[in-house]
Amino acid sequence: MNLTQSPMGKLILSVLLILLTSFYCFGQQAKYVFYFIGDGMGPAHVATTEAYLAATEDEIGFQKLSFTNFPATGFATTYAENRLITGSAAAGTALAAGQKTTINTIGMNADRSKNFKSIAEEARDNGFKVGIISSVSIDHATPASFYAHQPTRSMYYEISLDLPKSGFDFFGGGGFADPYKDNSVSTSVFEIAGLSGYTITSTRATFDSLQPGHGKIIAMGTKLESSGALPYAIDQNDADIPLEEFVDKAIAILDNENGFFIVCEEGKIDWAAHANDGASVIQNVISLSMSVEEALEFYYQHPDETLIVVTADHETGGLSMGSSRMKYDSDLKLLGKQKISFQNFSYLVDSVLVKKGEDKPTFEFVMGLVDAYFGLGGTNGSPLSEEELEIFYQAYLHSIGEVSSLNGINYGGYNPIAVTTTDILNQRAGIGWNSYSHTALPVPVFAIGVGHEMFNGYYDNTDIPKKIAEIMGMQNWSSGELK
Amino acid sequence: MNLTQSPMGKLILSVLLILLTSFYCFGQQAKYVFYFIGDGMGPAHVATTEAYLAATEDEIGFQKLSFTNFPATGFATTYAENRLITGSAAAGTALAAGQKTTINTIGMNADRSKNFKSIAEEARDNGFKVGIISSVSIDHATPASFYAHQPTRSMYYEISLDLPKSGFDFFGGGGFADPYKDNSVSTSVFEIAGLSGYTITSTRATFDSLQPGHGKIIAMGTKLESSGALPYAIDQNDADIPLEEFVDKAIAILDNENGFFIVCEEGKIDWAAHANDGASVIQNVISLSMSVEEALEFYYQHPDETLIVVTADHETGGLSMGSSRMKYDSDLKLLGKQKISFQNFSYLVDSVLVKKGEDKPTFEFVMGLVDAYFGLGGTNGSPLSEEELEIFYQAYLHSIGEVSSLNGINYGGYNPIAVTTTDILNQRAGIGWNSYSHTALPVPVFAIGVGHEMFNGYYDNTDIPKKIAEIMGMQNWSSGELK
Repeated sequence: MNLTQSPMGKLILSVLLILLTSFYCFGQQAKYVFYFIGDGMGPAHVATTEAYLAATEDEIGFQKLSFTNFPATGFATTYAENRLITGSAAAGTALAAGQKTTINTIGMNADRSKNFKSIAEEARDNGFKVGIISSVSIDHATPASFYAHQPTRSMYYEISLDLPKSGFDFFGGGGFADPYKDNSVSTSVFEIAGLSGYTITSTRATFDSLQPGHGKIIAMGTKLESSGALPYAIDQNDADIPLEEFVDKAIAILDNENGFFIVCEEGKIDWAAHANDGASVIQNVISLSMSVEEALEFYYQHPDETLIVVTADHETGGLSMGSSRMKYDSDLKLLGKQKISFQNFSYLVDSVLVKKGEDKPTFEFVMGLVDAYFGLGGTNGSPLSEEELEIFYQAYLHSIGEVSSLNGINYGGYNPIAVTTTDILNQRAGIGWNSYSHTALPVPVFAIGVGHEMFNGYYDNTDIPKKIAEIMGMQNWSSGELK
Repeated sequence: MNLTQSPMGKLILSVLLILLTSFYCFGQQAKYVFYFIGDGMGPAHVATTEAYLAATEDEIGFQKLSFTNFPATGFATTYAENRLITGSAAAGTALAAGQKTTINTIGMNADRSKNFKSIAEEARDNGFKVGIISSVSIDHATPASFYAHQPTRSMYYEISLDLPKSGFDFFGGGGFADPYKDNSVSTSVFEIAGLSGYTITSTRATFDSLQPGHGKIIAMGTKLESSGALPYAIDQNDADIPLEEFVDKAIAILDNENGFFIVCEEGKIDWAAHANDGASVIQNVISLSMSVEEALEFYYQHPDETLIVVTADHETGGLSMGSSRMKYDSDLKLLGKQKISFQNFSYLVDSVLVKKGEDKPTFEFVMGLVDAYFGLGGTNGSPLSEEELEIFYQAYLHSIGEVSSLNGINYGGYNPIAVTTTDILNQRAGIGWNSYSHTALPVPVFAIGVGHEMFNGYYDNTDIPKKIAEIMGMQNWSSGELK
């Protein structure tokens, strides 16, 4: 029977819709909310990942991620109070507090005279358990915007001290960027958080042992970068706790009859995009997709009480699935030849190049690394043209300090060899970048669960937490002054 | 009374929703359908236009276009049967016939052995009046996909002969790209269409006189480019008939009690994007927005019977609202200084430069044109840096034939002076381009009216006509062989 065609089908559909409608209008609210933020993730980052996944199976097309099948889709503008192209602090504050603010401001109004109350703080005051997760340091701008109130995002230590004050139940992912305030204080944020009742874990064993009833938790990755971030997804190995495990753990710890509110940021999509490192962007978008998968598993058990929203704070890099070099062609599968992140490759190149007073490694040696880790040139990789080799050679000269500035090329401030390598690989794969910075492009919004319809449309990023608060039954939340 | 909170409010809402639901399930169909296609219009083209409009009023943010407030928003993938980055023929066929096909194929299956029946042909056979409008030539790939069936898009003459065969009631906008088959036939498409009963207009007076009852119509612009296209929006003047007037006329001619199906393509968004001409892209997106405005006026009179869908066939240029030069800054207002399209500027530069056997104009003379038409350098415009002047000088040398290829720069095949001018203006304004070609980025979909909810989500471009057909009550349409 065709439900939309036959009279009986229409009758059945109508009755079902009437029941659903009544149910919705008479108090359907989200008790469990997941708020995922892909930092720097524009529509192109999502689509390129999907097309890459299809390409690895030799298919032309798009392989859906966990969240791109969600029934609701929208676009959100991201501009800051004082700049069309936003930053993570102003954008994080918009997503957390539903208010525009100035660049670099965390959880405060534009002139930094008042604190906004974030939706996470409101959720806490309404009896929800709250979890904040990030793949970069937990005091980084995006996660910080949900619990901290500081005039500038670079005040990492002060931001980290706001963390235990929040009283949120779970923090997970990265560690702290500046736990000792550049060694100027004797009491680290670890001790202060400990005194406030937080259990802090940084090993697999202690992480695995975490259970409900352990009190408030700060669960950090086992191997953090100097920035306090988890390694790039492309660089992680079995010893690392991937982002999705933090989501899984948060669900286990926070699940309770009063509900929970979990924020999870995949922050390294942005970092990889700043460096125009396409392969690392893709692996971190996959990391986000797998984290959303954990939330979806929970959703399937509680479909009438759960809401999952996936969005971004801004687009980074002006990514495009098309490059001037490849014109109408693409070879996305090539990105699979990249073995380590741009960042790790930079460390590697720096470690062999920057040895003052010693003999520098030869150009051939450096190109051997490019071949080994990116499959470009040499015996294993795709051959390099003479023009490409010349571009590499200029980068080499720049790297070893023989030339300080070449034709105005500054390599975006990144390691010249590394940035040249990813640039050539990306161009050959058929993806292009416009900038090493953020852009003002609207970001996508995907939603499933209670009230998901509200996320269809084209709106502003400040509307997103307002919609979520309404669906959580927190209509009284006004993102004004902190009480 | 808060309708979503108070018990009485909820009751009222429920009853309303029940009535709406019942109405929908028992036969609500779209009688009047508008299908707008912004050729090459990705999310960035839409957003940049909105941000530009805000910037002209010295506001940081986005000024809504007629269609960006629509309640339904979606994303559509665009890949072709045999290439990730599609072309207008395969994409047009997907949007017209709901089927993937190969690059350059018009209205036929992948191996070009069978004709697809387009949604426009199905609408005709279901009693709807049909109108096809385009700002480029009416036999160009996108409009052609709705009425023609030819193995390749470059067969303009053969495509144009399919036009009168379609029997559609109204064609409007551009003319024909090759009406005499490169002067190899004595009977032009004009005569053939005339013999088939079409009235053809190409002046303002005859256009204005068109009324219902005049029979089948081909209404062309008053001043067409050699390609058969209407001038770029930025180049149009009072003597031109703008795209929105063709929509307005189509409504007047086609309005009847059996309903109509109108396709309107703004094809020059794509052409401007190929040339990376940001200001012209913006003016043509505004042209599309004004055309949708005409449909909206009709919608407001028939809200329960009208559907408006606005989408694109693919993204062109890898546009981004952010440039490597400006990093986090933007100055979109600068684009307002551009007085003519890249295309017209190319003609102008060519006309003064390409005079074989004569004295070439000086570099200073050429830069005077750049100043006059783009406000760059000279006495009126923003000063140019030495580096920028050097880039212009290299382009000048290339233009006058002193150098045939410079450092591998080929200016995308465009006029070197013109492409350098728009590139520098765009970079300064804070918009960047990745390619002179199409990209594989998903395109936005906006919908309002009957059944608009169906356009939320993330789906494929082939789904769009299927959704429209369902809403039009043409469930029996299968986009297979032409009967």
